[in-house]
Amino acid sequence: MLIWKGRWLEKHEAYISLEEPCLLYGGLVYETLRTYNRKLFAGKYHFDRLKASAGCLHIKIDMDYENFRKIISEGVEKVNCDVSVRIMLLPRGNISAFGFETKSYELIIFLEKLNISKFPEKVKVSLSKVRKIDDLATPAYLKIAGRTDILLAKMEKGDAYDVIMLGSKGQVCEGTFSNVFLVKNNTVVTPSLDSGILPGITRKNVIDLCKSLGITVEERWVEPIELCDADELFLTHTSRGVVPVDELSSCKTYSKSVGRFLVSKFEEYIGSIEENWL
Amino acid sequence: MLIWKGRWLEKHEAYISLEEPCLLYGGLVYETLRTYNRKLFAGKYHFDRLKASAGCLHIKIDMDYENFRKIISEGVEKVNCDVSVRIMLLPRGNISAFGFETKSYELIIFLEKLNISKFPEKVKVSLSKVRKIDDLATPAYLKIAGRTDILLAKMEKGDAYDVIMLGSKGQVCEGTFSNVFLVKNNTVVTPSLDSGILPGITRKNVIDLCKSLGITVEERWVEPIELCDADELFLTHTSRGVVPVDELSSCKTYSKSVGRFLVSKFEEYIGSIEENWL
Amino acid sequence: MLIWKGRWLEKHEAYISLEEPCLLYGGLVYETLRTYNRKLFAGKYHFDRLKASAGCLHIKIDMDYENFRKIISEGVEKVNCDVSVRIMLLPRGNISAFGFETKSYELIIFLEKLNISKFPEKVKVSLSKVRKIDDLATPAYLKIAGRTDILLAKMEKGDAYDVIMLGSKGQVCEGTFSNVFLVKNNTVVTPSLDSGILPGITRKNVIDLCKSLGITVEERWVEPIELCDADELFLTHTSRGVVPVDELSSCKTYSKSVGRFLVSKFEEYIGSIEENWL
Amino acid sequence: MLIWKGRWLEKHEAYISLEEPCLLYGGLVYETLRTYNRKLFAGKYHFDRLKASAGCLHIKIDMDYENFRKIISEGVEKVNCDVSVRIMLLPRGNISAFGFETKSYELIIFLEKLNISKFPEKVKVSLSKVRKIDDLATPAYLKIAGRTDILLAKMEKGDAYDVIMLGSKGQVCEGTFSNVFLVKNNTVVTPSLDSGILPGITRKNVIDLCKSLGITVEERWVEPIELCDADELFLTHTSRGVVPVDELSSCKTYSKSVGRFLVSKFEEYIGSIEENWL
Repeated sequence: MLIWKGRWLEKHEAYISLEEPCLLYGGLVYETLRTYNRKLFAGKYHFDRLKASAGCLHIKIDMDYENFRKIISEGVEKVNCDVSVRIMLLPRGNISAFGFETKSYELIIFLEKLNISKFPEKVKVSLSKVRKIDDLATPAYLKIAGRTDILLAKMEKGDAYDVIMLGSKGQVCEGTFSNVFLVKNNTVVTPSLDSGILPGITRKNVIDLCKSLGITVEERWVEPIELCDADELFLTHTSRGVVPVDELSSCKTYSKSVGRFLVSKFEEYIGSIEENWL
Repeated sequence: MLIWKGRWLEKHEAYISLEEPCLLYGGLVYETLRTYNRKLFAGKYHFDRLKASAGCLHIKIDMDYENFRKIISEGVEKVNCDVSVRIMLLPRGNISAFGFETKSYELIIFLEKLNISKFPEKVKVSLSKVRKIDDLATPAYLKIAGRTDILLAKMEKGDAYDVIMLGSKGQVCEGTFSNVFLVKNNTVVTPSLDSGILPGITRKNVIDLCKSLGITVEERWVEPIELCDADELFLTHTSRGVVPVDELSSCKTYSKSVGRFLVSKFEEYIGSIEENWL
Repeated sequence: MLIWKGRWLEKHEAYISLEEPCLLYGGLVYETLRTYNRKLFAGKYHFDRLKASAGCLHIKIDMDYENFRKIISEGVEKVNCDVSVRIMLLPRGNISAFGFETKSYELIIFLEKLNISKFPEKVKVSLSKVRKIDDLATPAYLKIAGRTDILLAKMEKGDAYDVIMLGSKGQVCEGTFSNVFLVKNNTVVTPSLDSGILPGITRKNVIDLCKSLGITVEERWVEPIELCDADELFLTHTSRGVVPVDELSSCKTYSKSVGRFLVSKFEEYIGSIEENWL
Repeated sequence: MLIWKGRWLEKHEAYISLEEPCLLYGGLVYETLRTYNRKLFAGKYHFDRLKASAGCLHIKIDMDYENFRKIISEGVEKVNCDVSVRIMLLPRGNISAFGFETKSYELIIFLEKLNISKFPEKVKVSLSKVRKIDDLATPAYLKIAGRTDILLAKMEKGDAYDVIMLGSKGQVCEGTFSNVFLVKNNTVVTPSLDSGILPGITRKNVIDLCKSLGITVEERWVEPIELCDADELFLTHTSRGVVPVDELSSCKTYSKSVGRFLVSKFEEYIGSIEENWL
């Protein structure tokens, strides 16, 4: 179900005009969240990131976080189980083929029974030939529907769990919906924010979890060859937390011991961090 | 009005689901055309370019050009005046946050009374700080709704007619909806296709027109400083043909003599080229 | 004259083998300094920068600054006038077509009567088509003989005082031997260090001078179009301090009022800063 | 020994001034050749490439190829064995810290007993973190002493035979003195010229050799991950022809069957191609 203009609707009740500017010209800013035990995970982080994306389009969100959180709680009660949440912000203003001047926005919040699909037997990833869009063309932190790099990379996925994209200079960036970590000699390595990546919220939690466990973490520029030289590879994303990887394309298989250890500690850890549950 | 699933509809009759994949994940491929004297201009060129964009998303258009043209003729008769045409191709398949596998598509054609807005007294252009997305991240020829570089550049437009975008290495590329030409010592210069630009159809016609008039044309890498050093600057785009420019930001004013000369010859020229009216 | 292996020589006495590795394979690191009133200007800054360049080639300079300064003072006494100084560090080790492993170095210091060539009547600059080498290929701070970007840009100079180079993404960087400043609405703007420039010592002094005079200074990414839109342009380099510019290529002339004001204040200012005379 | 200004000298007789412009400012253009059975291999190709490099510095070589070849034959007779040849062209003109205007040149030819060092037991290569200089900063085909990218990459070599450099967008380019080939499913793949590589002469011969043997060759953009996924890797360079590789860093070992097969065919093949012996 979803809430739009203050009303709760079922999906089949919700239609928009074929002339919707976000359809014709883009600009739909979004965030995806989930609950654990019906409590919203990292809501404040996602809300702040939504504000940053909106700001990129010169839109100031006038709703406060308390209100936002109340709406979602209301939805969770209606759905009556753990949910995934998609917030969408549709800019309004003078938007056409010739200009993009925003004045206001509509906010739509989708809620859906959380449905974590069964894990594949082997988690494979591959490397995309599509480079991430450079920050000078579009900021990496702008979470907007229809980023063409992500779309084109997703087309290369095949039977892989996710495809990893390189940046404009060939550095490792991130998956189409996940952040990337590798393990080499018990050190955990992940691309730094200045590599041109989305500042993932699960990524941040996993970095902090590692530190709390005494595991060394390096956030830095990562070369693709390091993926081949790593002992382990794992992904992180909101809906699933930590995902240890079995194979890189056909050329490398990984151990999963550090990854599995982090999986075993993840839920307890995020539960213990107050900022995740504001 | 528009045609969708074989039916002519008025705009207010056309709605799509809020879960439309093109809205949530992008992928809407399009072309914009116009008629002159109720005859479709450069229809075959645009149709071929649409096929190229669709191919980029692994979609093969099964409609042939004859059929496409017949539909538009039918629409022109209904609207009963010159029209602008927007063709939109919406991919269908396994499209989600986690993958983009296309299997088929829906085609929607919008027709609208041609409405060339009044010319501004002074045509100003400015330079965008937003770089064009590099070809390795998204091919320049892919005409797709929601390219974030164009969206962000359009936000900087202010009272300019269009903003000119530079490429990933700082070369001059194109406007958000136009191609760019400069004139220096009676030579016409325009960014080459390998500068990372959309192969504009009006651009092609203007290059050919210049050659037919004995004007030297250089298609090459253009540095931004050349815009300041040029005698003239003009833009080209489908709905208006040739648009001589008066000013670049606040730092340069231009003569418009070659540009006006080309304006005076443009309609007759395109009318005389058979390929434009197939 | 010059000092090499502890001996003062006249230039015509100093020869090296045709098999000198720095000639065949590069690697000669250098700094250029000058005296004012026989006192070495910014000697410590240049010495530290030399150490940074040498470090880039895995060479640790074992001479201390005091010793370095004593040698130059000795030379100044011999030459008995203001001098320009060129320090050259020639790596030694296993250097061949197949490897570059440094173990030690030779240090050569050239001193020459300071000879500031007469100012041209009009100071012109132009923009180079040669891009600066990106930091990932060679750090901008590495001051090394035979940087090919500088060499190729110098070939385009013609009657210009210096040519300005853009960076790998088209941002304004610096001249082949100078840093670049522009003035717009009484604000002084200069490319930030992260634009990929050498951290010029005169540049630093001029920034500090402006601040001491209450002039706003912005260190940031600068687009080439801003050179056309500026009120003034000036260069800075060691041998001459501040150089107001009259013309950019054939397309722009500048006022020189802020530049001249800074020229009038420069020598007194640098004289007053203790760090310049350590 | 070497020939300089028309005179044959022993190396210990050849000295240049410490003020040699090529030492202070770079600009020494060169080629490296070798003989097989006292006959110069691919002399015409190297001579033409030398002319291209010189042209880049606005120098026209006035010596003709016949003369060039005669000098080398003379040298080979003196040395009386197979030799490696290093041709060096030193620009002359107005060359200083402030400009690089060439007017003429000196040509020096070194000859040395060919000394192919013993093969290492295992041929290892690694990937450099130093990116190749982009073509816009320095053309890849300009063979000039002191290219800083090559110098810095050579510093990372350790016990590797050569280090492979990536280009400005992360594509595989070449080694510091070799070209790179990989074999995957019996197809030979090598970076295309537009990847930003030196057009190696041995590279060309090996491509032609493969074709003559019915082996498919792809010249194209190569991603670094493909090095990990390849069945074989081999290098090519003038002094040694084809060099099959055993290991990539610590992360991949290769079969050498196609490489060894090409080694076994190489000398006979190049001997049979007339253009190599002009």
